[in-house]
Amino acid sequence: MKLSEIARRLGLSMHGEDVEIEGVSGLDAPVAGTLGFIEHKRMVAEANASPIEAFIVGEGVSLNKPFLVSPHPKYSFSQVVAWFSPYTPYERGISPQAYVHPSAKLGAGVTVMPFACIMEDAEIGENTVIYPHVFIGKGVKVGRECVIKAGVKIDDLTIIGERVIIHHNTVVGGDGFGYVVHEGRNVKIPQIGRIRIGNDVEIGACVTIDRAALGETVIEDDVKIDNLVQIAHNVHIGAHSIIVAQVGIAGSTSLGEGCILAGQVGVADHVTIGDRVVVMAQSGIEDKEVPSGKVLFGTPARDFMEQKRILAAQLRLPDLVKRVGEIEKRLGIERE
Amino acid sequence: MKLSEIARRLGLSMHGEDVEIEGVSGLDAPVAGTLGFIEHKRMVAEANASPIEAFIVGEGVSLNKPFLVSPHPKYSFSQVVAWFSPYTPYERGISPQAYVHPSAKLGAGVTVMPFACIMEDAEIGENTVIYPHVFIGKGVKVGRECVIKAGVKIDDLTIIGERVIIHHNTVVGGDGFGYVVHEGRNVKIPQIGRIRIGNDVEIGACVTIDRAALGETVIEDDVKIDNLVQIAHNVHIGAHSIIVAQVGIAGSTSLGEGCILAGQVGVADHVTIGDRVVVMAQSGIEDKEVPSGKVLFGTPARDFMEQKRILAAQLRLPDLVKRVGEIEKRLGIERE
Amino acid sequence: MKLSEIARRLGLSMHGEDVEIEGVSGLDAPVAGTLGFIEHKRMVAEANASPIEAFIVGEGVSLNKPFLVSPHPKYSFSQVVAWFSPYTPYERGISPQAYVHPSAKLGAGVTVMPFACIMEDAEIGENTVIYPHVFIGKGVKVGRECVIKAGVKIDDLTIIGERVIIHHNTVVGGDGFGYVVHEGRNVKIPQIGRIRIGNDVEIGACVTIDRAALGETVIEDDVKIDNLVQIAHNVHIGAHSIIVAQVGIAGSTSLGEGCILAGQVGVADHVTIGDRVVVMAQSGIEDKEVPSGKVLFGTPARDFMEQKRILAAQLRLPDLVKRVGEIEKRLGIERE
Repeated sequence: MKLSEIARRLGLSMHGEDVEIEGVSGLDAPVAGTLGFIEHKRMVAEANASPIEAFIVGEGVSLNKPFLVSPHPKYSFSQVVAWFSPYTPYERGISPQAYVHPSAKLGAGVTVMPFACIMEDAEIGENTVIYPHVFIGKGVKVGRECVIKAGVKIDDLTIIGERVIIHHNTVVGGDGFGYVVHEGRNVKIPQIGRIRIGNDVEIGACVTIDRAALGETVIEDDVKIDNLVQIAHNVHIGAHSIIVAQVGIAGSTSLGEGCILAGQVGVADHVTIGDRVVVMAQSGIEDKEVPSGKVLFGTPARDFMEQKRILAAQLRLPDLVKRVGEIEKRLGIERE
Repeated sequence: MKLSEIARRLGLSMHGEDVEIEGVSGLDAPVAGTLGFIEHKRMVAEANASPIEAFIVGEGVSLNKPFLVSPHPKYSFSQVVAWFSPYTPYERGISPQAYVHPSAKLGAGVTVMPFACIMEDAEIGENTVIYPHVFIGKGVKVGRECVIKAGVKIDDLTIIGERVIIHHNTVVGGDGFGYVVHEGRNVKIPQIGRIRIGNDVEIGACVTIDRAALGETVIEDDVKIDNLVQIAHNVHIGAHSIIVAQVGIAGSTSLGEGCILAGQVGVADHVTIGDRVVVMAQSGIEDKEVPSGKVLFGTPARDFMEQKRILAAQLRLPDLVKRVGEIEKRLGIERE
Repeated sequence: MKLSEIARRLGLSMHGEDVEIEGVSGLDAPVAGTLGFIEHKRMVAEANASPIEAFIVGEGVSLNKPFLVSPHPKYSFSQVVAWFSPYTPYERGISPQAYVHPSAKLGAGVTVMPFACIMEDAEIGENTVIYPHVFIGKGVKVGRECVIKAGVKIDDLTIIGERVIIHHNTVVGGDGFGYVVHEGRNVKIPQIGRIRIGNDVEIGACVTIDRAALGETVIEDDVKIDNLVQIAHNVHIGAHSIIVAQVGIAGSTSLGEGCILAGQVGVADHVTIGDRVVVMAQSGIEDKEVPSGKVLFGTPARDFMEQKRILAAQLRLPDLVKRVGEIEKRLGIERE
């Protein structure tokens, strides 16, 4: 593809020679003949020196090789990436080797691949693609233009919005984990609520989202969830939030909008987290209220800057023990 | 359902008007026209003020709206919850689209849904329900009245008791993780043991339980395991224990009866844990012996109260470093 | 099997009576009539006292019961273990209930079990076994003598070497987790790279390995990965490394050869780890460079010995706070 064609499609101005672009690559693994991107002037030298043929650059940046100027270079680049994808869609249509209950309603253009199961009264929106070994339980509603990858299990009565992507072997709708001890035994509390997932949500592989005890577990619009995340019953995740891999969120906890939980974070049950809260990797949150805008780190999670000061001081702790001993000796303080 | 009918079924005394009950709800998300429950007198004001129509209350509690008195209000409530469930059972019987090896033995009333696989010499007890995409390996025994949800894989020779529930995409019977380094390579140690699971066990979604190297990995009766838990080879979990989401238990570790491991806890290999041990979330246990009744927290896990004192003192650590410096200056102690 | 026959097969010298061996067991769960092993002289008394019939022992060790001498007793023992396995192979061949696209190429001796899916242009090497509910996407290449257990999903264009074992419900080829915020929304960055897995790799159950954004996610030869591990896009894991259960490795991080990450470790993105690095359980690595040979512990991970000193000093911290207060009082230092 000519660079000028890329400029035309993106509506960006081209500078320098109109070269042929054969793919995309990044500065960490640059490939000759490809298009890259840089956002800041400080990357100019590296970009000029790299074998990458041409770049999309931020406004006010210029190179000694061909470049396109964009107000959002990373966003523009991500659009180009899609054009060079080696992945191609699967054949459309309903496989004769799928199981589709007669009462299920499939919109126009729905694809159902072999060995998928769509049960009683399920509804699948237009152009949604259901991969092999997917289970769609009774009364589930999946919106239009969703992609449900191989092995995903969506249990009964779950409601899923439009343009949702769910990766392989994820489980939406296992029972919440609730018991009452009675006569020395753990008696199951029936989990009779459901799950509601908004539009434009993406969920990674081997994620588990439990249905509510009563009411709903809710994932709002534009939430992105990475692999192996656990979301317990009655959790509410606000729009635009990012949940990184292996995070666990316990029952009835709610997150506001635009939160970021980094990898392996744990959040206790019944915690209320405000908007735009950022939690660093492996932290554990037990406080029942987290105000909007906080940045937290550690187990138990503390304000990020305070925790950094404590961690720095910890490095001096073994020495501090000795120093206090010396002071005591000097002062003639005896310790038993 | 009339409140009097609920009282009759539960064998509880009714106080106040005989109202119509249309569902169940909790005080955290109260719904008009429903039944709730409270255990303690301190919740009375909130219960009276809520839109919930009627309550199950503990003994000695009374309300200004209809209520039933129970010695175990939460337990009684959980029984009512089941009566209002919108979830209905699937059609019974053996799907013609399932694979059942001719040598497999299915008890009366067994359900096998489409695309499930039941292999040579497997035995499935009466009334057990096998969902789609379940794999039951050779020689597996599953007891009566179990529910094996979609995508569960149970590998060869596993023994499962009665009334066991296993949620979607859980794996019972992967190989234990054992290698011996030989000539610079990791050589697999064959894992030839098996897994035995007792009665009334519930296992969440995407859990992995490995078969023993030699002998057995054992989950005793009434153990409840949440989602995404890892249980390694030769682990033994005592009866009535609760294992919360994303816990990992390494090889040959044993837990006594009635233990609780909170979310994301890790336990090292070859650890012996007594009865009724409680481990707080994200803790890591490396001590080889944990006596019965201990409460532990932190990595490495320490006695909960001691750890709390250390965490409180940590908040003062940056200041302490300064204070010791000032004392040294006062005393004329020079530090290199 | 006669002990002499075992000695003959292993090429080891036999000492003592030629007894009948009915199985294998270990000293932690010894069984009469079986073969065990010990590596060191310090285990001699326990071995002699145990009901185990005969042992494989290290050089220079002798017992008062039958034994074989091996330069590598654990390795020799692991070979014997396989001979006593109760697990037997499944019937070979292509199930008529599998889905195999006409363009897929299956090598001689390939087994495909019911409800497995092999899509367009996939290639499966000789004697590889594909269990039920496996999905092999378009253009995937799987080498010879692999075992792909039930429910594994391998997405398009993945390349897998020879003698690779992948346990149940693992996902190879979900999209990497990459977004760019644009006009307040999380816009997906297309993940158009692939995954390459070397020879003799073993991957546990419910593992997730993401395909690269651009380029490749790489697992080199002889890497062993335990259950529920997360490997993000563009990660590179060096040969012979061991990744224990529930580890998470973030995007573009590389590990050298022969590393060991213990259970629940987290590694941040874009970290470069040298060879033979050992990271203790639950640690979190955020430093961007880790030199070869380091042993790390804690979050954030520090040198193991330093961290041990800090942890020991922490036990004295609450007391230290008091002691410093007393010193200040003695010196007449007032604190506000």
